[in-house]
Amino acid sequence: MSKFISDRFRSNSPYVPGEQPKDTAYVKLNTNESPFPPSAFAMKLAREAVGNCELYPDPEYTSLVSVAAEKFNVKEENLLFTNGSDEALNYVFAAYCSEGGTAVFADITYGFYEVFANLYGAEKKIIPLREDFSLNAKDYASACGTVIIANPNAPTGKVLSPEEVLDIVKSNKNNVVVVDEAYIDFGGQSVLPYIDDFDNLIVVRTFSKSRSLAGARVGFAAANESLINDLKAVKYSTNPYNLSRMSAAAAIGALLDEDYFNGNCKKIISNREYMTEKLRGAGFTVLDSSANFVFAKYNGVKGKDLYEALKKKGVLVRHFEKPRISDFIRITVGSMEDTVALVKAATEAVKEI
Amino acid sequence: MSKFISDRFRSNSPYVPGEQPKDTAYVKLNTNESPFPPSAFAMKLAREAVGNCELYPDPEYTSLVSVAAEKFNVKEENLLFTNGSDEALNYVFAAYCSEGGTAVFADITYGFYEVFANLYGAEKKIIPLREDFSLNAKDYASACGTVIIANPNAPTGKVLSPEEVLDIVKSNKNNVVVVDEAYIDFGGQSVLPYIDDFDNLIVVRTFSKSRSLAGARVGFAAANESLINDLKAVKYSTNPYNLSRMSAAAAIGALLDEDYFNGNCKKIISNREYMTEKLRGAGFTVLDSSANFVFAKYNGVKGKDLYEALKKKGVLVRHFEKPRISDFIRITVGSMEDTVALVKAATEAVKEI
Repeated sequence: MSKFISDRFRSNSPYVPGEQPKDTAYVKLNTNESPFPPSAFAMKLAREAVGNCELYPDPEYTSLVSVAAEKFNVKEENLLFTNGSDEALNYVFAAYCSEGGTAVFADITYGFYEVFANLYGAEKKIIPLREDFSLNAKDYASACGTVIIANPNAPTGKVLSPEEVLDIVKSNKNNVVVVDEAYIDFGGQSVLPYIDDFDNLIVVRTFSKSRSLAGARVGFAAANESLINDLKAVKYSTNPYNLSRMSAAAAIGALLDEDYFNGNCKKIISNREYMTEKLRGAGFTVLDSSANFVFAKYNGVKGKDLYEALKKKGVLVRHFEKPRISDFIRITVGSMEDTVALVKAATEAVKEI
Repeated sequence: MSKFISDRFRSNSPYVPGEQPKDTAYVKLNTNESPFPPSAFAMKLAREAVGNCELYPDPEYTSLVSVAAEKFNVKEENLLFTNGSDEALNYVFAAYCSEGGTAVFADITYGFYEVFANLYGAEKKIIPLREDFSLNAKDYASACGTVIIANPNAPTGKVLSPEEVLDIVKSNKNNVVVVDEAYIDFGGQSVLPYIDDFDNLIVVRTFSKSRSLAGARVGFAAANESLINDLKAVKYSTNPYNLSRMSAAAAIGALLDEDYFNGNCKKIISNREYMTEKLRGAGFTVLDSSANFVFAKYNGVKGKDLYEALKKKGVLVRHFEKPRISDFIRITVGSMEDTVALVKAATEAVKEI
């Protein structure tokens, strides 16, 4: 870094994305992508949009917002689309956690929350998950800060019921509660239908997982109009045209191709159950997951060693060298072929280590 | 806005993008887009990239950076690609103008600089252009703050020589100097070749104008490695995957299709000279422009009235209701057909008002 940079960046450790290998030699189960290509209709619309790229996009993304509003049964003013859900989260932290705000989140959750909190100089109130990695909603009652919850949580895959989430929302009338539902389509129940019942609830979604569009960078925030206007204030102060024409078109296609989306989610859930059963059969401890990944460990084997052994066998998974979870690896649920390959490699690996 | 939002957003007026009409009934000369479609090769690569969009992009955009480094004759570590040049500017202000920094820029320039300065709570040192709207490089000597210069400037179209720009860089050894070269390909001389000679020079570029990719959202910053690492710290703390696979692919194609790019720039310059001559012939005052727009006024006619009269005639231009320039309109230089239509409409309009 240069001598010119502001202290807040000098002292912050940025988020470290999972490895994106340049070759395709790996069974890639490390960044929770979909094993299925984007919907054919999404691809068609994206390819058509290429031809108009000399023109700026509509900064309000009216067509996309209109399709999404109908799909999610909300009003258009309840939605703001973003360059991946990370940008939605960035807007949330900028809007509510800067200037001495407090951010409240679990000790084990999506690592970017801490990066954002540090970046915006927020006080951090970090609440440990229970021993079994479940989140106790009661711990978040009157949290005195902006609450950020991933549901299902990452990297554990554990899910809260809508009632538990709404209990947190109700007990934080003076704080915004952000529910990051990146993995909700794989078995959780969304609180998106409740955004108009609460003036402090923001739901964040991504198209990177269940909608096979990680490479298109599309996410959104859903909330009552007043909160959405807060986030729009951030967007129009930083990056008004935040989605390309191609990405917005792909998102429309992905939303309209519901059968493909539903079919893919079912396959992932089915492959996850298969993977969980087989790994448990081979002696692994595997948390019950409601996401497109499982969190697993093998008694007496370090997570890092397991990660490395799998990498040598051509399977990339994710390992976090962090307290409480360093024994675990996070394994994305891919195609059945990938799942079979992972189970075989993992079963062999623990025998060899 | 909600009661929850931080003061810095409550009090900031966001940037207002030019109108993006939903219909195509207008001759659209208001947002400095290219009248030419993206390069056929750029479109081909973007369409091919659609099929891999279930996977995250390479967050380092290695292929794109490599092509651009060769094209601009710099090292790969001198470049950072962004979601439009607005995102590069946002990173710059975040890195150097937060926490009590000072931002130094002209009274008449790209409106987003002031938005960013306000957003990050920077002190603003606003330096008036000369009476003829030219920028006096000497006014920026030892500016005691991060200097941001658009070259050519918007909305005036006036250009500085590389010597003048480098004089500013040399006289600000303790400050970063940012040169926003969004319009450089239409007649200016870039200071990009000098980034390694100075530890305080950042050049910002966009693919939205000369490369016909406003809808793809691609820009970049070029600077010595240390400054680029500053900007990377911002990127990896906020939005690691900031370009879609499709946009990165389109950018590669646009860079490699040099003949198309050069031909389009020549046509725009030629159409600009035609427009300038014809408008002057019709009694307009038109500033000499080195950009893909001209800044023009007609004695005795208000800029706003001219803007509105042209809109009624089906031609969209941009008007800024701001001190010193409210008499002017900014007219994008489009195709020859658009240029002829504009000249005709403008000539009629001033007779009718």
